[in-house]
Amino acid sequence: MPISTELTARLGIQHPVLLAPMDTIAGSRLVRAVSEAGGFGILGGGYGDRDRLAAETAKLKGFARPFGIGFITWSLAKRPELLDLALEARPHAVMLSFGDPAPFAPSIKAAGALLICQVQSEDMARQALDCGADILIAQGTEAGGHGASRTTIDIVPAVVDLAAGRVPVVAAGGIADGRGLAAMLMLGASGVLMGTRFYASVEADGADEAKRRICAARSGETVRGVVFDWSRKLMWPSPFTARSLSNDHLRRWTGREIELMQRADQIAAEYAEAKAAGNFDVAAVFAGESAGLIHDIPPAAEIVGRIIAEAAQSLQGRRNSLPSPLVGEGGADKVRAG
Amino acid sequence: MPISTELTARLGIQHPVLLAPMDTIAGSRLVRAVSEAGGFGILGGGYGDRDRLAAETAKLKGFARPFGIGFITWSLAKRPELLDLALEARPHAVMLSFGDPAPFAPSIKAAGALLICQVQSEDMARQALDCGADILIAQGTEAGGHGASRTTIDIVPAVVDLAAGRVPVVAAGGIADGRGLAAMLMLGASGVLMGTRFYASVEADGADEAKRRICAARSGETVRGVVFDWSRKLMWPSPFTARSLSNDHLRRWTGREIELMQRADQIAAEYAEAKAAGNFDVAAVFAGESAGLIHDIPPAAEIVGRIIAEAAQSLQGRRNSLPSPLVGEGGADKVRAG
Repeated sequence: MPISTELTARLGIQHPVLLAPMDTIAGSRLVRAVSEAGGFGILGGGYGDRDRLAAETAKLKGFARPFGIGFITWSLAKRPELLDLALEARPHAVMLSFGDPAPFAPSIKAAGALLICQVQSEDMARQALDCGADILIAQGTEAGGHGASRTTIDIVPAVVDLAAGRVPVVAAGGIADGRGLAAMLMLGASGVLMGTRFYASVEADGADEAKRRICAARSGETVRGVVFDWSRKLMWPSPFTARSLSNDHLRRWTGREIELMQRADQIAAEYAEAKAAGNFDVAAVFAGESAGLIHDIPPAAEIVGRIIAEAAQSLQGRRNSLPSPLVGEGGADKVRAG
Repeated sequence: MPISTELTARLGIQHPVLLAPMDTIAGSRLVRAVSEAGGFGILGGGYGDRDRLAAETAKLKGFARPFGIGFITWSLAKRPELLDLALEARPHAVMLSFGDPAPFAPSIKAAGALLICQVQSEDMARQALDCGADILIAQGTEAGGHGASRTTIDIVPAVVDLAAGRVPVVAAGGIADGRGLAAMLMLGASGVLMGTRFYASVEADGADEAKRRICAARSGETVRGVVFDWSRKLMWPSPFTARSLSNDHLRRWTGREIELMQRADQIAAEYAEAKAAGNFDVAAVFAGESAGLIHDIPPAAEIVGRIIAEAAQSLQGRRNSLPSPLVGEGGADKVRAG
């Protein structure tokens, strides 16, 4: 059963499920898989690695399904020419997160792409709308990787009210199953953006061990902070921090961040070595609170299919928990036939 | 349109909306108003003020609608005789939060009352089920007053999965409107418990100025911490902290909690004086993240009515955002006629 929303109409997709543009994880293979399944894949533009971006966008040239490319805005500002490279791949949308979208909005619009802006506060949402954002993503603190402090059920209705129907709002942070998609639709969102759930998929470019650790993590075992950024000498602008699975390195340095910064050269060298060796007792697995809901590593198409089926089931209601007119035999049959 | 769930059946109520037993705010007047509106009022048992509890329970004796009485479990453990006083009022349920329910479960059950346990983690949920809890409340960090760190969209599905249909799960934290109720039903909850929304009601025992400050607060302006507890010399057990509106006193002491503790006698005297004077630049207004959704101070019955109507509207779907079989003319008409 398709779940049609303003978002699916705007992007020309079948299912209101977007892939978060996770740096180095959301490569062209995962983008293709999500878009081919009827969702919307967004390539991770990352921290300005031109060679990787060129290679991955090359693999998407001429791809027939709608897809997007995402950037870390403050990082893109250091190498703005990468936007031109991205636009050459003819994405249906460019997603900007973590910074001022104003310098990039005109080129994106001129290229005929939609502008998707991810926001973590009402002020950021206003700024994005002023820049002509076509779609807003309201990201809660539950999200994996970088984000801020407001929770999903707080920020989503706040941004929905602010957008007031002018643009579709997508919910991000803590969503990994169809219950979450259905819940976000109730809050007024038109769809969801998911990172962690797609990280643990066959097509994601992450290490198998990282994917296994996401599956093994229980709810409540992720932490938001600066330890992994500072261990890579990546100084993110306030208020953004990164959520990851906890591991030995994180436990060692949490609460000792100043010392970590003072010893940054040494720690960064050790960290880079451990990361190259695939040692995830030290290297980060960026993942969100939804890790507790994730227990397997299926193909992305299966993830999309499951989420839509689960959401349809939740929306259709169970006999004992939703208004009777929605769960009567007639209603249920109608939904199944939809 | 009634929204019937396992929870409404279990409690014998019309609407799956519970009043949080806010200390000194949720008095007998508010309990009666919520229960008379078809929800479930729960009297705030507070920190063991026997005179207040006796006076408020006296006003509930013989009340014909189902209602409950709530306790801070670790505080009740210091004056366990207060439970007997509560049970004499013949509540339909006793709600225990923040501590081990085991010592109190037998008396509650023996009195024929249901045991409602509020939990903030899977471990607490397991403990509550082992004690024979009839209803679990999964509380997210968005909640006003005391709580812990996990967010609502994280903890609710986790507790729903753990309860596995054995008992109804109620969602708490960040909910103040019908969108929130509908979203929580999608996550598998059978209803919601709301504090802040009912604080800003005619019948709540709080100061008018406190209610006005809740209405004026924007989303993202509440803070979770220990400043107000320590300013009252109330040492809550870990991991519980309290969420409140920000004010001058909170800004003054946030980040200086150790100094606050060292000067506890002096600060507590100043704080008590300010509180007695109704000076909310110093005294706390305990309120949750949902304060941003709250803009008026209506009678509690109007709050219940609005939430149910809004939730029904969300569940019924809007033409552009939910599966077409749920939003066609026929479906919508059926819901309205329900």
